[in-house]
Amino acid sequence: MPELRKDPLSQRWVIIASERAKRPSDFVPEGPPPAPSFDPFAEGNEDKTPPEISAIRTNGSQPNQPGWSVRVVPNKFPALQIEGLLNKRGDGLYDRMHGIGAHEIIIETPKTLNTFTSLGDAHVTDILWMYRDRLLDLQRDGRFKSAIVFKNVGQAAGATLYHTHSQLIATPVVPLHFQMKSAACRQYFDFRGRCLLCDMATQEQEQNTRVVLDSGQFLAFAPYAPRFPFETWIIPKFHSSHYEHHDRGVYEELAFILKRALLKIEKGLNKPPYNYMLYTAPFHTPPNEHHHWHMEITPRLTPVAGFEWGTGFYINPVPPEDAAEYLRNVKL
Amino acid sequence: MPELRKDPLSQRWVIIASERAKRPSDFVPEGPPPAPSFDPFAEGNEDKTPPEISAIRTNGSQPNQPGWSVRVVPNKFPALQIEGLLNKRGDGLYDRMHGIGAHEIIIETPKTLNTFTSLGDAHVTDILWMYRDRLLDLQRDGRFKSAIVFKNVGQAAGATLYHTHSQLIATPVVPLHFQMKSAACRQYFDFRGRCLLCDMATQEQEQNTRVVLDSGQFLAFAPYAPRFPFETWIIPKFHSSHYEHHDRGVYEELAFILKRALLKIEKGLNKPPYNYMLYTAPFHTPPNEHHHWHMEITPRLTPVAGFEWGTGFYINPVPPEDAAEYLRNVKL
Repeated sequence: MPELRKDPLSQRWVIIASERAKRPSDFVPEGPPPAPSFDPFAEGNEDKTPPEISAIRTNGSQPNQPGWSVRVVPNKFPALQIEGLLNKRGDGLYDRMHGIGAHEIIIETPKTLNTFTSLGDAHVTDILWMYRDRLLDLQRDGRFKSAIVFKNVGQAAGATLYHTHSQLIATPVVPLHFQMKSAACRQYFDFRGRCLLCDMATQEQEQNTRVVLDSGQFLAFAPYAPRFPFETWIIPKFHSSHYEHHDRGVYEELAFILKRALLKIEKGLNKPPYNYMLYTAPFHTPPNEHHHWHMEITPRLTPVAGFEWGTGFYINPVPPEDAAEYLRNVKL
Repeated sequence: MPELRKDPLSQRWVIIASERAKRPSDFVPEGPPPAPSFDPFAEGNEDKTPPEISAIRTNGSQPNQPGWSVRVVPNKFPALQIEGLLNKRGDGLYDRMHGIGAHEIIIETPKTLNTFTSLGDAHVTDILWMYRDRLLDLQRDGRFKSAIVFKNVGQAAGATLYHTHSQLIATPVVPLHFQMKSAACRQYFDFRGRCLLCDMATQEQEQNTRVVLDSGQFLAFAPYAPRFPFETWIIPKFHSSHYEHHDRGVYEELAFILKRALLKIEKGLNKPPYNYMLYTAPFHTPPNEHHHWHMEITPRLTPVAGFEWGTGFYINPVPPEDAAEYLRNVKL
């Protein structure tokens, strides 16, 4: 019997189609692309990107020169433009504004690698620290209302470059999914007087059927109503609305659990295409009791078809309990 | 300068990234799959599908025998199960119910064709009439709250079978996207006293920059804030909340414009993968002034990446005015 489950955060219903159940070996990802003959993100090619915004450098090396471990540059083909006014206006019944925003690339290593999972934990911590740095810097600009940090790995997940990197896009409006998640969190808080994701962390630990990793302060788990097979969320067990409001120790532990969750996905599912997304509270909001920052990792093993596009309903052939058990048992 | 535009129906913002502009020739779709060696949907193979639910037959031919032009069967691997009770229940803070619903396949021709665009207009009308028939039949079941008819063409759009067919899924809850569209239409109606899509039809005809085809009673146009390059909507210019409430003449004209819109997409974009979705009002609702049924055709030429998954914001490199002009000029 298939089952319908509702994700309390996104408000989406998902069909857990056990009749269509698949085993991990049934998914044959296309595999990672070959290393490129020329890598514009590699050390020594700093002049092939727009001038850097920020970098972690050693030995007093100069900007846009070798000697960095993490480097942030504007996207050469940005979806949004950094300079200008919003110029909000109508067009008959429609609404429009200038495409103002920030679109940055976080180059995660000077080496030509396709993933950061072979880097040391301290290096991964530097990457996560850089996310914090850029979020703090960009929210000084009143035109930007929120930002998302995300990663595309593999062509089916939208990657166009081999070299491991994340992206940050700051937008002049709060995106629909953020609004809906915020509304769901606020409704839950108004009804229960507690944070939805705090309650989720408690229930996941108690039920202990969807947990992939538990690092003490963080939980990696298959969400109750995942859109995609092997979808994995990482949340702090402690309450925190803003990703960027922490000391280095928190990013150290996040680096530990994130790297291991990705290693399990890479090893267990044969390097599938995937995305990850980091959700922090919208800009210019004080710490609050209802929003809880989190990360979502979504392997892209199944195509999205008309039903999903049309309804927002997802059909997932792998129950999250099976996915979590499988990933839990992947030896690193 | 990129532009942000809001789709008033879905409430989504879209980035029209003119700096990343692409011409139609820049998209290289994977092309249609080869015809299969065995076609379970072809005439003569009626015993290879579950027993038929309905069919358009000539010459008094018997069910599950040759002699049909359009045939409806249950999906052999249904996402939802037709028999059973909903059994709605909680699971701690989560919500679940049995996966009850209908999942039907509308086989559009007895011949092994990959598209219905080579069929005569009367045959396409029969297909659209069958959508109506199935919607009217399924809403007699009080467990089903709404249904969507959709089509997946090409692997990137989620198709797994070559033979041209549509699918119908009736769900026991109204899907999120339906709820959001309904809410947007109702808000607009409450504010303006007019139907959003009626106003849209008027504005599109007046501006006349995004119209692809105008058949008199129907308009095919590139929406103001399309998620995907060459996304095309078809709407009746007259107000109607329910697709299934018409006489044959309406489906005849819809067949005419739908077939020609698809022909332009197939010819102009080299047979790209695409989906189409038909949105009618939820079941068990009387005709109303705010909902307006419509179809969306979404070619799948660009991958969906972390930003889109994470935010619900889409980056579209082709302005809809350019897309409409291109499709308008494709000679049939």
